[in-house]
Amino acid sequence: MATVMDNGVLEAVLAEVRPLLGRGKVADYIPALASVSGNKLGIAISTVQGEHFQAGDANERFSIQSISKVLSLVVAMNHYAEEEIWQRVGKDPSGQPFNSLLQLEIEQGKPRNPFINAGALVVCDMLQSRLSAPRQRMLEIVRKLCAAPDIAYDSLVARSEFEHSARNMAIAWLMKSFGNFHNDVATVLQNYFHYCALKMSCAELSRTFLFLADGGHSAQQTAQVVTLMQARQINALMATSGMYQNAGEFAWRVGLPAKSGVGGGIVAIVPHEMAIAVWSPELDEAGNSLAGVAVLEALTRKLGRSVY
Amino acid sequence: MATVMDNGVLEAVLAEVRPLLGRGKVADYIPALASVSGNKLGIAISTVQGEHFQAGDANERFSIQSISKVLSLVVAMNHYAEEEIWQRVGKDPSGQPFNSLLQLEIEQGKPRNPFINAGALVVCDMLQSRLSAPRQRMLEIVRKLCAAPDIAYDSLVARSEFEHSARNMAIAWLMKSFGNFHNDVATVLQNYFHYCALKMSCAELSRTFLFLADGGHSAQQTAQVVTLMQARQINALMATSGMYQNAGEFAWRVGLPAKSGVGGGIVAIVPHEMAIAVWSPELDEAGNSLAGVAVLEALTRKLGRSVY
Amino acid sequence: MATVMDNGVLEAVLAEVRPLLGRGKVADYIPALASVSGNKLGIAISTVQGEHFQAGDANERFSIQSISKVLSLVVAMNHYAEEEIWQRVGKDPSGQPFNSLLQLEIEQGKPRNPFINAGALVVCDMLQSRLSAPRQRMLEIVRKLCAAPDIAYDSLVARSEFEHSARNMAIAWLMKSFGNFHNDVATVLQNYFHYCALKMSCAELSRTFLFLADGGHSAQQTAQVVTLMQARQINALMATSGMYQNAGEFAWRVGLPAKSGVGGGIVAIVPHEMAIAVWSPELDEAGNSLAGVAVLEALTRKLGRSVY
Amino acid sequence: MATVMDNGVLEAVLAEVRPLLGRGKVADYIPALASVSGNKLGIAISTVQGEHFQAGDANERFSIQSISKVLSLVVAMNHYAEEEIWQRVGKDPSGQPFNSLLQLEIEQGKPRNPFINAGALVVCDMLQSRLSAPRQRMLEIVRKLCAAPDIAYDSLVARSEFEHSARNMAIAWLMKSFGNFHNDVATVLQNYFHYCALKMSCAELSRTFLFLADGGHSAQQTAQVVTLMQARQINALMATSGMYQNAGEFAWRVGLPAKSGVGGGIVAIVPHEMAIAVWSPELDEAGNSLAGVAVLEALTRKLGRSVY
Repeated sequence: MATVMDNGVLEAVLAEVRPLLGRGKVADYIPALASVSGNKLGIAISTVQGEHFQAGDANERFSIQSISKVLSLVVAMNHYAEEEIWQRVGKDPSGQPFNSLLQLEIEQGKPRNPFINAGALVVCDMLQSRLSAPRQRMLEIVRKLCAAPDIAYDSLVARSEFEHSARNMAIAWLMKSFGNFHNDVATVLQNYFHYCALKMSCAELSRTFLFLADGGHSAQQTAQVVTLMQARQINALMATSGMYQNAGEFAWRVGLPAKSGVGGGIVAIVPHEMAIAVWSPELDEAGNSLAGVAVLEALTRKLGRSVY
Repeated sequence: MATVMDNGVLEAVLAEVRPLLGRGKVADYIPALASVSGNKLGIAISTVQGEHFQAGDANERFSIQSISKVLSLVVAMNHYAEEEIWQRVGKDPSGQPFNSLLQLEIEQGKPRNPFINAGALVVCDMLQSRLSAPRQRMLEIVRKLCAAPDIAYDSLVARSEFEHSARNMAIAWLMKSFGNFHNDVATVLQNYFHYCALKMSCAELSRTFLFLADGGHSAQQTAQVVTLMQARQINALMATSGMYQNAGEFAWRVGLPAKSGVGGGIVAIVPHEMAIAVWSPELDEAGNSLAGVAVLEALTRKLGRSVY
Repeated sequence: MATVMDNGVLEAVLAEVRPLLGRGKVADYIPALASVSGNKLGIAISTVQGEHFQAGDANERFSIQSISKVLSLVVAMNHYAEEEIWQRVGKDPSGQPFNSLLQLEIEQGKPRNPFINAGALVVCDMLQSRLSAPRQRMLEIVRKLCAAPDIAYDSLVARSEFEHSARNMAIAWLMKSFGNFHNDVATVLQNYFHYCALKMSCAELSRTFLFLADGGHSAQQTAQVVTLMQARQINALMATSGMYQNAGEFAWRVGLPAKSGVGGGIVAIVPHEMAIAVWSPELDEAGNSLAGVAVLEALTRKLGRSVY
Repeated sequence: MATVMDNGVLEAVLAEVRPLLGRGKVADYIPALASVSGNKLGIAISTVQGEHFQAGDANERFSIQSISKVLSLVVAMNHYAEEEIWQRVGKDPSGQPFNSLLQLEIEQGKPRNPFINAGALVVCDMLQSRLSAPRQRMLEIVRKLCAAPDIAYDSLVARSEFEHSARNMAIAWLMKSFGNFHNDVATVLQNYFHYCALKMSCAELSRTFLFLADGGHSAQQTAQVVTLMQARQINALMATSGMYQNAGEFAWRVGLPAKSGVGGGIVAIVPHEMAIAVWSPELDEAGNSLAGVAVLEALTRKLGRSVY
């Protein structure tokens, strides 16, 4: 691996994909995201051997958005027994857009999985019940995982999200009507939007998520982040529900567990080897980074990596 | 691998799971399936090194049902260009029961993936358009892949399926109404039901599907069955859509690409290593073999195998 | 009534509405309907006192299409006990397009009402079970009701419908899968399409449906067509489900029980007074005659007629 | 009419229906409603000639609940131009339970009609935009219409509703996400719940709603409540959407425009003749008063009244 991989490989992949810039659409449901330049393209790789590679805009921080749903699940898995979590949220692909209420109403307020909005809101509701300061706690965890003590929330983004939160309000209240949401709706949404508003770079994301490639172990921590089994389980969830309703298409093209965010970031895992983070703000129709997916596809073909 | 795996390991796993027999429900939508004893439990493993292990009822043939959907896709991939296939059927999880018409109506007759009934029917419609004798061709392919020249259709099952085919008739006609079904409905359904009525044992299934673990290469054939890339792609589809609406739960528990059938069989792939076939006729609520899933879960934990 | 109504009133209403011609769209799902001139506009009124008024293209025959759903229900009410009918089809508005399968799947094959396709197909299935020659019987009934012995099916339309029947095939098979369709699908669909292909003029339709305004009694028959109570019940069904998914909008604008067909005809009832038939082939988005609805709205405002 | 109708007729109808008491289920989603005795049965009729008849518990006040949706629509029609209202809410039957979000999501936040919760909430949102004191204004209107200056809100019920308002919160927020809800959600819901918590008797309800039978004119007011055309339109809406998803069944059995509430009240209109109010708290599966519907059915059969 060390022999084939270097920053030049990454540069080549970015160059190959760069012509796609301009074909997607930057998320514009809040002004704070709409103002990001669509022209950005970055990649970073952290390996279990401790190597780090990167290219392009890999040090520029962006809003990680739904990538944070993996982090909030991790924190929940640290504070709740397995059955406590999974009686409130499922593990299966939804087959629906990430912010749909249809399935939630039919299935009596139990979200299909923790990576759609409804599921992540239930997870945040759980954190609110057990943590005294859920926002501060998340910052501590992330700062430690990526060894960057200045990781912070973009409060402008968080506030802007909250001001445009009607759909998520509806989702939370619908779950409350079914008894699957216990805390104050506005409080939990504030936490949720702050998590989404974490600003991190590709370099920081690949370091943060390396534990999922390394059996739950993080180079930055003495203790396991999660157990080996839990790391596999989280990867399994990402593989089946991490790319909005395009999980199958993404598995077909890239073949790695991954989680994307509407900020244009994607984190992908090569188990036992590496964590990859890519960033390009323009999205495809499903809400995944258009160039980001293409970078991952080109890279995995070049490296011959796929879990399948 | 050779050191840890032997028939004794498989025997132990079956013994561990056997207490679950009696908790599921044998498929009873047609008499020919309902009469199968729920008490059966078998497993077979074929490795890329040419080893073969098995335990329990591994030599008893059963109706492979939806496992055949992988085989018909393989044949279609041999006779159609990639884009010809995927403009008529998608690659993403449906999030719905395998025989639902809801999504199909909303999405204008294009099935979500080739492993739900609608998708497999489109694939069979494609085979009917290009093959002169689609049923005979399938037999030849399967007989060769598992080196068992007496593999045959269970015509009693096929006829019984056809007599209870109203739902699949509705699915095919609905697709026809959207222009996504070209041949005579009854003819294609006859082919489809014959494929489902293939009788194979675990031992034969693990041999047949070994090519998906071996980069598209089959020990029984000089030519590739599919390309390396196609093998990965099929595994990716199985991982995200192979276990009806329980793809996420199965990935969580077992962590392997797999395809199940209501006859109680499941084929799972450990890429680069082996193909596993299990059989136990009693099904869980999603239509997957209850003990079969448990066998795969126990085995992968014991062997430490997971793609994630 | 006799003082205010004359053919001149009808002429005036047609003149008022004529500018709308060109704003709708002639049904084009089968060639035989698509070829009808969109320029036609006719109206006929038959009163319980035996008067008859008409204007425009009131003597030109057209395909009555879904208006026949009322007639097939009437025949079923003559041959089945009330509970036999209503255990197989409901009485409530569907809130869905007339040919949708969504609700039918969720509600286990029981159509919402007899005026959507699924409901009418169940009714035709019932007629097939009890009548030896359902098509001939319908002709006899209609010929008698409008005193026109040359009423006939447009076999070109019927054949064309059958050749484009995939959606209705899907509906029938879906109901069969739930046990709510007993006879051969193609046979029943042939009857259904023939009923839809009845060719009648506005003048003939207003005479035919007068019994619904006259407590079930027809001037052309010695016996009641249906009982007083049944006439009211049919009117109630038309008022709530007779205009596809626009029942509420139509009640708001016109205020009469009515049934429309995609051939551009609408039959409306003023209980105790008259039956009105209008015809103009161009349809609005819900599938109702655009000018036809406007004629009924203008007429009822002018006459001060509304059941509400 | 005066010759056949007297209090004795009403007594006889109540006696006929009384055996049904015990077969329905009192609404229990809030404690304040669940505590009402299921044994109550009352009816009152006000005629356009100024007569008043009543029997049973006709003077006991109860929570009018969704019957108030007609009143809030009336107030909106007094303060908004027709097109302002109907671009924000439709006029057609929903075919769905009254508190469903499914259709609302698919149809982009525009409720099907003003008599389902979503539609009534939009109407209340409109009142909040134009009235300085919407709750006080409603009280003034109702007190005047029924000539009972002590009509009041049951603040216990209103508070209890608000405490169990999660579903309606979700509905309002979903509409806000589509731009179809302009004011503070909690404020509008408070108004809505107060309207639902109006306490009125059958005697008061029949007087209040008499204007819908009398062309928009109320005996208690010098000005019209609504125009003749508007009265018809409101009756048309009640006929097609007033009885939750049972509009068709109710039209079939009773044949009158009507609006029900989960408090067990139903108001029905015989145009040009009378307003009828019935009350019995036990509900059928659709949420309509079980005995109340039966009383209306028996009465209309006895009187020979039906709009159809």
